[in-house]
Amino acid sequence: MISEFELIDKIRSGISLPDGYVGIGDDCAHLPESGSYRTLVSTDMLLENVHFLRKVRADLTGWKAAVANISDIAACGGSPKGIFLSLALPRDLEDAWVLVFLDGFKKACAEYSFPILGGDTCESAGKIGISVTVLGQCPDGRAVSRSGARDGDEICVTGTLGDSAAGLGILLKSENNPDYGNYFIQRHLCPRPRLAEGLALSESGLVNAMMDISDGIGSDLRHILAESHCGAIVDTARIPVSENLRLLCAGNRVRILDYAISGGEDYELLFVKKAGASLPVAHTVIGRIVSGDSLVWKGTDRKYKGYNHFSDEKVF
Amino acid sequence: MISEFELIDKIRSGISLPDGYVGIGDDCAHLPESGSYRTLVSTDMLLENVHFLRKVRADLTGWKAAVANISDIAACGGSPKGIFLSLALPRDLEDAWVLVFLDGFKKACAEYSFPILGGDTCESAGKIGISVTVLGQCPDGRAVSRSGARDGDEICVTGTLGDSAAGLGILLKSENNPDYGNYFIQRHLCPRPRLAEGLALSESGLVNAMMDISDGIGSDLRHILAESHCGAIVDTARIPVSENLRLLCAGNRVRILDYAISGGEDYELLFVKKAGASLPVAHTVIGRIVSGDSLVWKGTDRKYKGYNHFSDEKVF
Repeated sequence: MISEFELIDKIRSGISLPDGYVGIGDDCAHLPESGSYRTLVSTDMLLENVHFLRKVRADLTGWKAAVANISDIAACGGSPKGIFLSLALPRDLEDAWVLVFLDGFKKACAEYSFPILGGDTCESAGKIGISVTVLGQCPDGRAVSRSGARDGDEICVTGTLGDSAAGLGILLKSENNPDYGNYFIQRHLCPRPRLAEGLALSESGLVNAMMDISDGIGSDLRHILAESHCGAIVDTARIPVSENLRLLCAGNRVRILDYAISGGEDYELLFVKKAGASLPVAHTVIGRIVSGDSLVWKGTDRKYKGYNHFSDEKVF
Repeated sequence: MISEFELIDKIRSGISLPDGYVGIGDDCAHLPESGSYRTLVSTDMLLENVHFLRKVRADLTGWKAAVANISDIAACGGSPKGIFLSLALPRDLEDAWVLVFLDGFKKACAEYSFPILGGDTCESAGKIGISVTVLGQCPDGRAVSRSGARDGDEICVTGTLGDSAAGLGILLKSENNPDYGNYFIQRHLCPRPRLAEGLALSESGLVNAMMDISDGIGSDLRHILAESHCGAIVDTARIPVSENLRLLCAGNRVRILDYAISGGEDYELLFVKKAGASLPVAHTVIGRIVSGDSLVWKGTDRKYKGYNHFSDEKVF
């Protein structure tokens, strides 16, 4: 089967964009507005049994459908403009699922100030399908892309990594009776996108490249390196993880790093700043950008590979 | 099961939009830009076995996925800004389907000048799912909505109606060997949205309400009446149909009107103009707006009902 990246290459081949546009290859597309701002746009599909399960609390699925997209606006340093929700619903679906899903979706949109402006509804002959499109805004020249990393820049992340992946593991093992109060399950199902932090970082003017962490830095950092044509050295000892994750893994460093580097859906920000720059947002420096195209994980023998949405199993 | 309209009410309830926004209930949402323009946004989902069949030529499915959305920009009188494509692809799908689909999709986007700016790809555990989001642009105060019809206005349509529905019927009967050269099948699978006409009509300033005809005027006209709080008298003898449709129906007026009024996916424009206004676009006057809330189909006893995407069968 065609790979995700071959497919994206096929889609973008032969397309020339108008002046001032940024298209495929970033968290958001950038479209010039008539004034001195840009519209930022991102879109995601979420499918039952691929990205979520029907038996999980539907309000949490709704919350996540919204914030996974809002996080892409955060990744570019944008402010909220609006959100669109399309739902493909099987005939046998209980109304309660839809109504509870909407509660969670609307709660997230209200929390992050994204008005729901439209969408589409239709009947599915198969499973539940969700498509979300989110629009943000940014002054000209202020949006942060993936392509601006430079030799010597410091690689940084917000928050701690790996809790969400650990939560997914616990959720998958919990059969039909998950503990929604569990710290890790909360971290997996109720991520909080770094919208305010992304905006503050873009306004600082000190951040050269940024994206959100959705597939784990083992995959996501490669996107920044590819778009910026550079390499990196990451000091794995500096990757921030929660005290809870250390306890869960009984201090097993390999397991901790697997969660923190390869686990997805943290929705923290990964960014590079000018070396030594003081930023208005709490963060941890985990490495630095170097010339060339190699990615070195200092302190481990593991090779952390990229993530292909077509060849790996991914549930929730 | 919850109806499409109940669901939309649930989604829009309790949402207050910022000043200058138009949200759910029109062909496009309208978002103010930083300058004196508005961004227009519309999004649609297309599902295998609901909106299209895998065995139909994939380039035509690709074309239609693009133009069904582009038609929403036409309906508001907008000009092109960009388009986003999300694909959920089952593992057993042949690569050829995807590549041929993309050919048709990209051809339509190029023809109507909508650059492809992004999207999403993922693996589907079920059937093929397609989600398209399209963005257009319009000067402030120029976008035409569904809500401006006034007592005495004339109801107009572009082109001829009903050919697409007749084509669907022929396609469904043609088993595995459809004649893609057939006039009606062409009209069904290769609709041509009225983008230039929509723009010219909005620029004329003489059109009070407009939408595109996707579900048949029997359903679509009701949206204009509901949003504009008025009624209408339609003279069914004036509804324009092609000579080919007359021949196909051997002049049977009931059959012709069923196709022209209840058949969907013509992607012509339905609009109302000030009585007697001269327009820069070829059109046919088919009736007039009246006060009250009744919709009268002059010249027929049939009641043409609205279309509910959750309770009717719809294939292609």
